[in-house]
Amino acid sequence: MSFENLIRDVYLKIKNTEDPGEMASYIPELSKVDPTNFGVHISTINQINFGTGNCYDKFSIQSIAKVLALVLAYRLVGAEIWKRVGVEPSGTAFNSLVQLEADKGIPRNPFLNAGAIVVSDILVSNLKNPKEDFIDFVRSISKNPALEYSNIIAQSEKNVGYRNVALCNFIKSYGQIENDPSDVLDFYYDLCSLEMSCKELSELFLFLANNGRDIKTNRSVLSESQSKRINALMQTCGFYDESGEFAFKVGLPGKSGVGGGIIAIHPDQYAIAVWSPKLNKKGNSLKGMKFLEEFTTRSELSIF
Amino acid sequence: MSFENLIRDVYLKIKNTEDPGEMASYIPELSKVDPTNFGVHISTINQINFGTGNCYDKFSIQSIAKVLALVLAYRLVGAEIWKRVGVEPSGTAFNSLVQLEADKGIPRNPFLNAGAIVVSDILVSNLKNPKEDFIDFVRSISKNPALEYSNIIAQSEKNVGYRNVALCNFIKSYGQIENDPSDVLDFYYDLCSLEMSCKELSELFLFLANNGRDIKTNRSVLSESQSKRINALMQTCGFYDESGEFAFKVGLPGKSGVGGGIIAIHPDQYAIAVWSPKLNKKGNSLKGMKFLEEFTTRSELSIF
Amino acid sequence: MSFENLIRDVYLKIKNTEDPGEMASYIPELSKVDPTNFGVHISTINQINFGTGNCYDKFSIQSIAKVLALVLAYRLVGAEIWKRVGVEPSGTAFNSLVQLEADKGIPRNPFLNAGAIVVSDILVSNLKNPKEDFIDFVRSISKNPALEYSNIIAQSEKNVGYRNVALCNFIKSYGQIENDPSDVLDFYYDLCSLEMSCKELSELFLFLANNGRDIKTNRSVLSESQSKRINALMQTCGFYDESGEFAFKVGLPGKSGVGGGIIAIHPDQYAIAVWSPKLNKKGNSLKGMKFLEEFTTRSELSIF
Amino acid sequence: MSFENLIRDVYLKIKNTEDPGEMASYIPELSKVDPTNFGVHISTINQINFGTGNCYDKFSIQSIAKVLALVLAYRLVGAEIWKRVGVEPSGTAFNSLVQLEADKGIPRNPFLNAGAIVVSDILVSNLKNPKEDFIDFVRSISKNPALEYSNIIAQSEKNVGYRNVALCNFIKSYGQIENDPSDVLDFYYDLCSLEMSCKELSELFLFLANNGRDIKTNRSVLSESQSKRINALMQTCGFYDESGEFAFKVGLPGKSGVGGGIIAIHPDQYAIAVWSPKLNKKGNSLKGMKFLEEFTTRSELSIF
Repeated sequence: MSFENLIRDVYLKIKNTEDPGEMASYIPELSKVDPTNFGVHISTINQINFGTGNCYDKFSIQSIAKVLALVLAYRLVGAEIWKRVGVEPSGTAFNSLVQLEADKGIPRNPFLNAGAIVVSDILVSNLKNPKEDFIDFVRSISKNPALEYSNIIAQSEKNVGYRNVALCNFIKSYGQIENDPSDVLDFYYDLCSLEMSCKELSELFLFLANNGRDIKTNRSVLSESQSKRINALMQTCGFYDESGEFAFKVGLPGKSGVGGGIIAIHPDQYAIAVWSPKLNKKGNSLKGMKFLEEFTTRSELSIF
Repeated sequence: MSFENLIRDVYLKIKNTEDPGEMASYIPELSKVDPTNFGVHISTINQINFGTGNCYDKFSIQSIAKVLALVLAYRLVGAEIWKRVGVEPSGTAFNSLVQLEADKGIPRNPFLNAGAIVVSDILVSNLKNPKEDFIDFVRSISKNPALEYSNIIAQSEKNVGYRNVALCNFIKSYGQIENDPSDVLDFYYDLCSLEMSCKELSELFLFLANNGRDIKTNRSVLSESQSKRINALMQTCGFYDESGEFAFKVGLPGKSGVGGGIIAIHPDQYAIAVWSPKLNKKGNSLKGMKFLEEFTTRSELSIF
Repeated sequence: MSFENLIRDVYLKIKNTEDPGEMASYIPELSKVDPTNFGVHISTINQINFGTGNCYDKFSIQSIAKVLALVLAYRLVGAEIWKRVGVEPSGTAFNSLVQLEADKGIPRNPFLNAGAIVVSDILVSNLKNPKEDFIDFVRSISKNPALEYSNIIAQSEKNVGYRNVALCNFIKSYGQIENDPSDVLDFYYDLCSLEMSCKELSELFLFLANNGRDIKTNRSVLSESQSKRINALMQTCGFYDESGEFAFKVGLPGKSGVGGGIIAIHPDQYAIAVWSPKLNKKGNSLKGMKFLEEFTTRSELSIF
Repeated sequence: MSFENLIRDVYLKIKNTEDPGEMASYIPELSKVDPTNFGVHISTINQINFGTGNCYDKFSIQSIAKVLALVLAYRLVGAEIWKRVGVEPSGTAFNSLVQLEADKGIPRNPFLNAGAIVVSDILVSNLKNPKEDFIDFVRSISKNPALEYSNIIAQSEKNVGYRNVALCNFIKSYGQIENDPSDVLDFYYDLCSLEMSCKELSELFLFLANNGRDIKTNRSVLSESQSKRINALMQTCGFYDESGEFAFKVGLPGKSGVGGGIIAIHPDQYAIAVWSPKLNKKGNSLKGMKFLEEFTTRSELSIF
């Protein structure tokens, strides 16, 4: 069956199942989204682009942006980054401070909030105008000048971001944040507020399925080795406390966000983005997870 | 470059580097092995079989046997097994009790000692003669009737296995062990005492690179989906507290043992076994890890 | 108001309040006791002896025996004991393994199960016939040759004591148990099975209110300094996770057991024993705690 | 021997012992103090006042001020305070976040930094001009209008107080801080910056040895029951991770600060203050601890 037909089939099946998930409620802006939104879009290295449902509607990509921040930081400072943040799965919930205390301010991986805050600190240190330079980078690899932050979302998260203030200052207390914590957090909230559609996401992330190269220009965003390592990190750490489950059932590297988006990569094949705002108990899109499980099972295209 | 030449090249390079690792010392028997042993063997689905160094010498496969126990238990009880043991990486050292306390006796994954003890309990409950039936199973998939337990190693581990007695009784206190703890542990020590060469290991594990099917007979050891899931588990949990690092640097599912052996799987391509007894600080073969990192980098054959 | 009248008053008031507590259920023998039992007995250094309710009925003193084991070990090995067990409150539930892992087999204090197991190990190492010698010691300070272990209780605990097997073997894995774990645990179960009445308990423990000296013979059971230190330990660590609460509300050193007994000491004044089998959520006698809070509030005899 | 002679004796003995302790170094201001300072002062309910060494020199009382904040908050809101902060010893180092995570923002006791921050929040909510009203309260019970905050110390702590910012925001994330975190912390830094001499401290705290009543006016600062409870808290939680050790060796309720000060209370007898800036590994004054151990041993005046 073609990707198009398979996506359509699986989409319809999952769309009609009941969704006991709940919307992210910790910031009012995220809970205002229509919970019935459900979109999917695939982009393949053979230049197939296909989507269905709300695949052209923008949503808050939230933690998916942590991958983009990591990609830019990895370009800028190379392997130096691994002195500041680890590559191991955390084994505990996504904002736990326990681990950080044991490891003296070195987050276990760059996809934990703590890790993404450290990556943000690296970007604030290495970019002239962090907020502008970061979105310019994202626009350049997506070739989409219309991508924007949402100031409302960023401000909304900032207003209730006590846990992140705690994390950033805790890491700073170990000397592992270089800049002023409030500057680092402002940048962090901006990057998490990026808005994209499934179509934009799958196109943007396709370079990770293509050994780090832009599919159209063949220019390197990352080296082949760096690209593989980002994929490996998404595989082991991309879904908070459910990373093992995702590897087990879906078998692809990927990253989720509390806005209900998920991006998954099949190396040498495709990038696929799913969006459905209601979350399961681990904080990942409930229908998104189900879609990807069914899709990879039926396409027999896990990396394993 | 052919696999043969690449393996020879990388083998020679790694062989001549200094090895600051240390032998496993907690049981006398393991520390008696010649620390300069170093062997590699690959078996591909295209029927290439090639090895070098001490690739025909038997060693104690230790925790690598946990994969075989899991494979048999998965065959016997199917998905029921996941009610007794999780699929998430642990984020802490390999014999920690903290996690087990938080999760009321459900180990995070089947490759932790705690998890393998639960898998052993399942086998003790479901096999008529656990010790005999298990080795018969291993012999049948390897087509090698000469495979044996080492009674000396098993007894040696039993004599100092206070930590495992603690683990097994702790899990039993949550009602998550069905059999008598000493019966479960006797079986566990037996399976960890299995002895194989790199050649035997890579041939034995090749079915996991072949969607669960025996390469010669085409008979299913596991279903395709089960085989992929075992690989996913090895990917995320196979190297204790260094699983993320292995995924990051090597990019293959695999499993290590304190005897200095490592098995790694490239789905649809090959199984490769390495053995060098000196261990790094995380308890994995130091030269084995280095070999696999170099081998996959130069062959550009990570799954990512 | 005299002690006698105050005890009578408080006893009646507490007796008639509802008791939402629950019986210890982990061993069948303990749950067979009549839950309405309620007794109190005081022994003062002025030789007042007074009790009411079921103050002459024997019950399983359980963890209260840990104090007696500590007293004997302290006599035998002196301050050496503090190399094997700490004097700090634990801040976690009474059988947690987390602390033990962090401290490499040194329990935080001698009243945790782990700590009492280490004390038992010291007694097994230092007594010729541990079981007989220990009860001889208890009989000698109580001048009561009729005190006995309960074999039924000891056996009953042994049958379900997986957690204690785990604790003892875990400590042994750090080299902090000298003897065979099963010998240590047999002795531990015996001492916890001691049976006494409130009257026997308050008379037995009076030496701790009398600077370590037997009230009748004036012979030292412990030195004055040792006696004060045992009291300090009971003050800070005697009630599992509720030690602070007991100090806060009752203001006396004391020790509870899951059989529903509590002993409390007012230095230079008295020892008081209470027994009521239903336990609060922290595992301490619900009516016993209430009685002592009311009694010390009305007698204005906290040590603070 | 009279208190005067005993203090003189013990003072001389301890003064001449070597002091392997180290100055608090986390804020520059604290490390500027002359490390050889050593003073002691006792105030008894029989109106004896006696001091020696640097007993009239002011120093930064730091965490000792947490007791005064608790006293004022307890006066203002009564037992309501115990809904916001516990009374159990913590079992971990003084600024750990682990406990706080497990208990959802309720600190284990009011003498942990986290607990004192919650108490500060209560005072900020309940005082019209927190900074002024608090020092007015302290001056009124000490009858010493000259007591002052140190702006230099407060500012110095604020500049490096990332850990406290983390703590306060972490608690706020659980909804357990009512005010703006920066207002709460400003007040917290002010109160910790209070400066007093040993003489001022022992006179100020004497009411806690006198059932909550001012020794001269007989007016209640706290009720008798409240006073006993503050003492019980100091007994079980006053010395961070060394509270058990202090109870064990000294046998009095007390509270230490990183400025090297210690206040200890013997109920119905006296308050004693010691100051020596070099700290042991647990963060308590090394000579101060030794002095009090020797003093109570020789006076045989522990509460046990």
